[in-house]
Amino acid sequence: MDYFSGRISDLIEQLGSLPGIGRKTAQRLAFHIVSMPEEKVKKLSDVLIETRRNVRYCRECCTLTDAELCPICSSPKRDKRVIMVVETPRDLAAYEKTGKFTGVYHVLHGAISPMLGIGPDDIRLKELMRRLEGDVQEVIIATNSSLEGETTAMYISRLIKPTGIRVTRIASGVPVGGDLENIDEVTLLRALEGRTQL
Amino acid sequence: MDYFSGRISDLIEQLGSLPGIGRKTAQRLAFHIVSMPEEKVKKLSDVLIETRRNVRYCRECCTLTDAELCPICSSPKRDKRVIMVVETPRDLAAYEKTGKFTGVYHVLHGAISPMLGIGPDDIRLKELMRRLEGDVQEVIIATNSSLEGETTAMYISRLIKPTGIRVTRIASGVPVGGDLENIDEVTLLRALEGRTQL
Repeated sequence: MDYFSGRISDLIEQLGSLPGIGRKTAQRLAFHIVSMPEEKVKKLSDVLIETRRNVRYCRECCTLTDAELCPICSSPKRDKRVIMVVETPRDLAAYEKTGKFTGVYHVLHGAISPMLGIGPDDIRLKELMRRLEGDVQEVIIATNSSLEGETTAMYISRLIKPTGIRVTRIASGVPVGGDLENIDEVTLLRALEGRTQL
Repeated sequence: MDYFSGRISDLIEQLGSLPGIGRKTAQRLAFHIVSMPEEKVKKLSDVLIETRRNVRYCRECCTLTDAELCPICSSPKRDKRVIMVVETPRDLAAYEKTGKFTGVYHVLHGAISPMLGIGPDDIRLKELMRRLEGDVQEVIIATNSSLEGETTAMYISRLIKPTGIRVTRIASGVPVGGDLENIDEVTLLRALEGRTQL
């Protein structure tokens, strides 16, 4: 990369170290950035460091936020008695986009994975259990439909059951618009097992 | 996006306004960035603004650099008598990766496009012509194989021919490893026209 000057190479290298940004994208981004108005780059640079500096876990749901409570936990419109458990803030975002869920969330920041050495103490489970001491009617487990997600769902449901709180799991099956012939066998079997009466 | 806090939403929005970064990638990047060590984010933030502030055109070849001369133009190993004309610094990078070109470059920063209202004066052509007053033996035109790239190549070759300097154009044809049945007809015809004796 010595054909670019030191600073541009630096920028390309740093952008390229971000997840999902390959060498070519990093180059395209770098050249776009150096041709942006300086004040826009200043703004981007500032928001990066400002956001990082001020980010913290929401006191209630553990999502990433810059206040003590995230916008959802501090909203009076949300039903605090229904908690949806997700693995990441991005999963929270995915469900928020549906606009239909009126409860609150709990973000685990990961899933139990014996393979990767991630145990129940490495995700925000204690914080979830503490919340259940309040007035909670239902915990909807919306961890991923992967081995780790399923393991985590199982573990949490066993942990909660003795408290008498209703524990549910989001359905697993064929995605809407999905073409049966392109769907893997495990999903097809799940869809079959989870069939409902019409 | 009000389900994320203000700063995180800001960051996602700003990342999402970069070329090739969609909403989901922006989200993934933002959450990755807020979980990075603060000093790494500081470094990224600094390199962004520092690079932007110090970037300029190389006095010779017009590529983007942070010194008066880019590393290629200031290298004693490069043959200044052979100039390859490219549209962007990324095209320069593509040829540098081959490791085989020992001449120097000239970066036009665009191509002539009547459609987009980009004329010969809007790209770095005057700078190229000025360079030809020195000791130049060959100008290799490596603009893209698009309508704009071809128009630009044609325009430049007509401009240079009266000077007696050799003007060449990189070959157009079937890419190496390319599967004939998947290649568009224009390329196939070009490959036929450009056939060479075996």
